[in-house]
Amino acid sequence: MAKPKKTPRPKAETPKGFRDYFGAEVTHRAEMLRKIAAVYHRYGFDALESSGVETVEALGKFLPDVDRPNEGVFAWQEDAEGDKPGDWLALRYDLTAPLARVYAQHRNDLPTPYRRYAMGPVWRNEKPGPGRFRQFYQCDADTVGAPSVAADAEICAMLADCLEEVGIARGDYVVRVNNRKVLNGVLEVAGLSGDDKEAERGIVLRAIDKLDRLGPEGVRALLGEGRKDESGDFTGGAGLSDLQVRQIMGFVAANNKAQERLLRVSENGDLPEELKSMFFGASTLHDADLVSVLGRYEPWAKLWNFYVLEVLYELVDGSKVGAEGVEELREISELLKSQGYHSDRIVIDPSVVRGLGYYTGPVFEAELTFPIQDEKGRTRNFGSVAGGGRYDDLVKRFTGQEVPATGVSIGVDRLLAALAMKNEGAANDPGPVVVTVMDRDRMADYQAMVAELRQAGIRAEVYLGNPKNFGNQLKYADKRGSPAAVIEGGDEHARGVVQIKDLILGAKIAESATHEEWKDRPSQYEVPRDQLVAKVREILDGQ
Amino acid sequence: MAKPKKTPRPKAETPKGFRDYFGAEVTHRAEMLRKIAAVYHRYGFDALESSGVETVEALGKFLPDVDRPNEGVFAWQEDAEGDKPGDWLALRYDLTAPLARVYAQHRNDLPTPYRRYAMGPVWRNEKPGPGRFRQFYQCDADTVGAPSVAADAEICAMLADCLEEVGIARGDYVVRVNNRKVLNGVLEVAGLSGDDKEAERGIVLRAIDKLDRLGPEGVRALLGEGRKDESGDFTGGAGLSDLQVRQIMGFVAANNKAQERLLRVSENGDLPEELKSMFFGASTLHDADLVSVLGRYEPWAKLWNFYVLEVLYELVDGSKVGAEGVEELREISELLKSQGYHSDRIVIDPSVVRGLGYYTGPVFEAELTFPIQDEKGRTRNFGSVAGGGRYDDLVKRFTGQEVPATGVSIGVDRLLAALAMKNEGAANDPGPVVVTVMDRDRMADYQAMVAELRQAGIRAEVYLGNPKNFGNQLKYADKRGSPAAVIEGGDEHARGVVQIKDLILGAKIAESATHEEWKDRPSQYEVPRDQLVAKVREILDGQ
Repeated sequence: MAKPKKTPRPKAETPKGFRDYFGAEVTHRAEMLRKIAAVYHRYGFDALESSGVETVEALGKFLPDVDRPNEGVFAWQEDAEGDKPGDWLALRYDLTAPLARVYAQHRNDLPTPYRRYAMGPVWRNEKPGPGRFRQFYQCDADTVGAPSVAADAEICAMLADCLEEVGIARGDYVVRVNNRKVLNGVLEVAGLSGDDKEAERGIVLRAIDKLDRLGPEGVRALLGEGRKDESGDFTGGAGLSDLQVRQIMGFVAANNKAQERLLRVSENGDLPEELKSMFFGASTLHDADLVSVLGRYEPWAKLWNFYVLEVLYELVDGSKVGAEGVEELREISELLKSQGYHSDRIVIDPSVVRGLGYYTGPVFEAELTFPIQDEKGRTRNFGSVAGGGRYDDLVKRFTGQEVPATGVSIGVDRLLAALAMKNEGAANDPGPVVVTVMDRDRMADYQAMVAELRQAGIRAEVYLGNPKNFGNQLKYADKRGSPAAVIEGGDEHARGVVQIKDLILGAKIAESATHEEWKDRPSQYEVPRDQLVAKVREILDGQ
Repeated sequence: MAKPKKTPRPKAETPKGFRDYFGAEVTHRAEMLRKIAAVYHRYGFDALESSGVETVEALGKFLPDVDRPNEGVFAWQEDAEGDKPGDWLALRYDLTAPLARVYAQHRNDLPTPYRRYAMGPVWRNEKPGPGRFRQFYQCDADTVGAPSVAADAEICAMLADCLEEVGIARGDYVVRVNNRKVLNGVLEVAGLSGDDKEAERGIVLRAIDKLDRLGPEGVRALLGEGRKDESGDFTGGAGLSDLQVRQIMGFVAANNKAQERLLRVSENGDLPEELKSMFFGASTLHDADLVSVLGRYEPWAKLWNFYVLEVLYELVDGSKVGAEGVEELREISELLKSQGYHSDRIVIDPSVVRGLGYYTGPVFEAELTFPIQDEKGRTRNFGSVAGGGRYDDLVKRFTGQEVPATGVSIGVDRLLAALAMKNEGAANDPGPVVVTVMDRDRMADYQAMVAELRQAGIRAEVYLGNPKNFGNQLKYADKRGSPAAVIEGGDEHARGVVQIKDLILGAKIAESATHEEWKDRPSQYEVPRDQLVAKVREILDGQ
């Protein structure tokens, strides 16, 4: 044969910002998504899987004046066909843009309302950072064509069910609900609803979106004259009057107002100590903590809910859209209660500000409320794992018609990380039972053993590397996390028996006892060949 | 607000060659893949999920002399970083190239041998055709670092298990095994193994790969002087001598030789009629038919197996690699028998020619043997749904080391199509029970009903479109394939009852009976409100 030309060897590397997932990383995610899909399905949502590739035009990232679509997506141009230049194609960056395209394309064949769920990878052409990848999973459910807030309430209930289904206990999470229309009402009351006030509204939205990071004082500064940050950089403010600032801050701090009223009616001292102590420490209070604690005291939670709505009604007094927004929150609350979802799971919470700039009606966010240590060793809540809301112009780009839609997106990686923390020390993906090869001419016998084990539903394999060095076989079993190894040498074969090592017990003994004294003994069993499956089963059950 | 500039509306279309998958199309595939993953896992294979994006360099499609990587992949260039031009990235076109990259990249952390399975979409930048898409699923399992044919045998057994697990009955499939080394031996015996015979070997490989399409006469012509096809086009031949042609045709027709010998030893007439009739019709015989029938007559199958190996030994007489190849086939056969996989499931079959050009050792192919009607109304076997084999230079490109590997790829779409044919008329993905809205102010009551149904594990939803037109609600239920609808108007509410329509029975009655006589009656039930779940359950069970 002709000698191949020498070319430099390619690098065996994932592209920057991409990674590989191994073993349990894959199966745990698949298992979690399967459980979520089952809940979505039970709620009447249908599966939809669109391809990873869309036209840039359909994704809505097309910039006609540049040669190349913008940096947020991975895009390329198809080859020209004759004189016609090729289409620009791109990898989807979320599951909502494809839903809009699918609904516009197939709307005559789809039921209305159309409830669909979708799960799969999306791609972002961003600078990768630690823990930030350019391909990741999303897991969405949306209802298209249902204007009623019953659709929003349903999604909140479904989100709670999903979290419980995958293993987040009731009490360890809360779904917080807010409404963009209430903010619109507040803006209207503050005289910021005119066409000429678009710039101010933009600054206000960006400012309250930074509440978590800057705190109330930072937001207040951005609403007024502006804010100088620690580095000395100055961000211009919206230049609102003191009254306007108070009106808007009243919205994001509506919880505090409700808290004051709750304290006032409970002067007789029957407010539970836990609640009281949270209220008095109000300046450092994280709202999600409060609502999760409230959830444990249902009568007080009801009252709290009542006061929150009361405060909001007052804030939007005189605005039609604002009153509509508060009314929607009340309705959602009622609908959820009728289905058994109380404040221990889902609460109205005006301090939810994430997504208010994007959504047009109800906004929801699921937070996990159990404590974790952050990277600096401080205790905080695990935080948000899902969010969503109503966005009523989903397909308008395509058809010109406004179609109401509401939906939720579960942060797959965040939720997986939360489950991993909750289940620390729980069983990992179990390795296979390894049948070792003592005599390579008797491979057929060893294969017969694994076949028997597999038929009994036990994960098992024959060692298929070079069998010469027996130590390597046990090292291999160790690397695989094998629960047990099976050994049948010539002597055992002649006597009709097999040796079975309990590798989990063996490892424990090796850790705890002096090496010589126990040397492999008590974790190894000899049984007749025909009891192989039964003994392995017994060992696995014992582990 | 400033008026947005008018831009033409984007087209709501999938890119050419891509498609959307709805409902059961998604769930049936997911269910099938889950079952296959469980079998792979039981055999000790670990999940691996690499990202959809690889460097073109790692994929091995890099052509340094063109501006753009070749047409088979979707590729794009990353932005330059300073003076350094950006990497070319591409969507993976299969799951084997990423496995090679992963193994080379992580080989120090991975166990050896490394058994891994992977399932997911791959992309091909090809001209789309009817039923040919540019994104489709693959589902692979490979063992890297195991030189022994026990690894190949294991994969054949696993493939058989997978097919049975997803619902292909034993007898409806056969895994056929061949070996590239036997062909190498035949080539050597025919004097075609020298470095100067590369061109001839290429023509021979391409010719026998066309056996299915051209038949033996066509292949024979290509081995000799060449072949004129129906359109008059001439394809040059390998120019082999008559003896050489006979030697090579002997390989692909080894089954016929074995068949002759089987007939000869059964002169006493005890060969089953079914087998005999297949043998006598040998000229039109499709080999897969023969092996599947043979599988039903185990003693004869054993003898057949013996003769096939005998014929092959004779064909490679004098070639070391050829003898090795036949010996490997014999070993595989023995190993499989020891695990209980006989000729009713897995057979040695030299007529398997697909992939012989690519693989370096054992080659396997799973065929479904039940008859279907093809597009021209002719009856034929369903055909191939999976294939694989040994390829021993997987990571050599990266590391310079030769690492043995063997694996299988299941054709996800083909197998799904087969299952759909087998299960024709079987239950589809069931639609949700639809609770209709008679009084929109009582949405909370309807939501409570669906919550009860869901808690009982019943798929259910409230109608969330405009409830004004009740007929539309029933049309919606029909479109969703709902098994039942629940109705509670003011009258029912006052009396504490609900109406439940059995929509499946209703549709049957509407189809079969005169409309007036039965008008909706017998398929509708009135029950007390607190028996809602029990009655719906009863109706669903009855369907």
